[in-house]
Amino acid sequence: MKREGIIFVISGPSGSGKGTVCEELRRINPDTAISVSATTRSPREGEVDGVSYHFITRERFEELIEKGEVLEYTQYNGNYYGTLRSEAEKIISDGRDLILEIEVDGGGQVKRLMGDRVCGIMLIAPDAAEQEKRLRGRGTESEDVIAGRLARAKAEILEAPNYDYIVINETGKTAECAADIMAIMRSAHYAYSRMKEVTDGYFDNK
Amino acid sequence: MKREGIIFVISGPSGSGKGTVCEELRRINPDTAISVSATTRSPREGEVDGVSYHFITRERFEELIEKGEVLEYTQYNGNYYGTLRSEAEKIISDGRDLILEIEVDGGGQVKRLMGDRVCGIMLIAPDAAEQEKRLRGRGTESEDVIAGRLARAKAEILEAPNYDYIVINETGKTAECAADIMAIMRSAHYAYSRMKEVTDGYFDNK
Repeated sequence: MKREGIIFVISGPSGSGKGTVCEELRRINPDTAISVSATTRSPREGEVDGVSYHFITRERFEELIEKGEVLEYTQYNGNYYGTLRSEAEKIISDGRDLILEIEVDGGGQVKRLMGDRVCGIMLIAPDAAEQEKRLRGRGTESEDVIAGRLARAKAEILEAPNYDYIVINETGKTAECAADIMAIMRSAHYAYSRMKEVTDGYFDNK
Repeated sequence: MKREGIIFVISGPSGSGKGTVCEELRRINPDTAISVSATTRSPREGEVDGVSYHFITRERFEELIEKGEVLEYTQYNGNYYGTLRSEAEKIISDGRDLILEIEVDGGGQVKRLMGDRVCGIMLIAPDAAEQEKRLRGRGTESEDVIAGRLARAKAEILEAPNYDYIVINETGKTAECAADIMAIMRSAHYAYSRMKEVTDGYFDNK
């Protein structure tokens, strides 16, 4: 029996260090697939449809959202950007794991649409004080902006129950955190829910 | 917050290769605790109570079973052998992981008694044909004995839903199988159910 891949959703509140950890993950695990996003913006010079992006119309994008065919999406500068269900399904049915680095509020949505084919991982800072320090350390944003980010982070932590795993990203330990995620990615394939077919059919397939 | 250890129950039907894999696990991971079993047999010369075994009376053992204080047990030569809940709790509250290599039918029982403090891992052969080959390959047992083992293995596979993970032990790949289990042991600590306290209290502890 061919083993299906898993969609690993990696999210984390602002200050969790998600970007740095995902960069390290891609470095140590170059085989993991990255999906080609769909967008409603026009192709730029040199961009190839189906390689750079799937370029589709606004009407089509909204139709796909309506049908539950867009796993997650965001709007930026008046254009949609998102991951198509068909694109993700193509990758995992080919036996490859897919990492989706997305916003916290999108994780629950992907899980609802794809069930056990998804494994959700939420990164968090060691504690709230450290998280705030990271938010402030970024630059010279105003107190208003900081307060807004903190409020958002508080709301995002409440999404934790929508994730299968919560991983603490200790300061200065990016490699260790990426190794934790690699262990999750290895073990997730053996979760009973994903092995059920094997054990159910064990003596029938003899 | 101090991190609690986890009780890893490792089981597998006859022919799964559980013994060999657990031996390899102990070799590569010598820090994992092994619990001191309780028994009703008499101490032999040189055996120390609380080190070799916890030596207790038959009456006491049965009283502890009655109270749910024995996580799993078996009888051999008219004596009980088993793991006391108090012994396991001492180890995990000290932050150490514990491996319990037990029979398949005991795994569900341990899970019921200890809930999320347990992570159950069932090892299986790649398929039923290979499992039978391993059973037969052992020696010169009669067809009756083989048939009995196969019947038992069939019943044991039905216990799979009582386990969190199902790991295939490919022939000749003991090290890989042990590494799969190590990945499970690393990742299990980050399961949402075990991290709930951290995320629930995240902004209160600030």
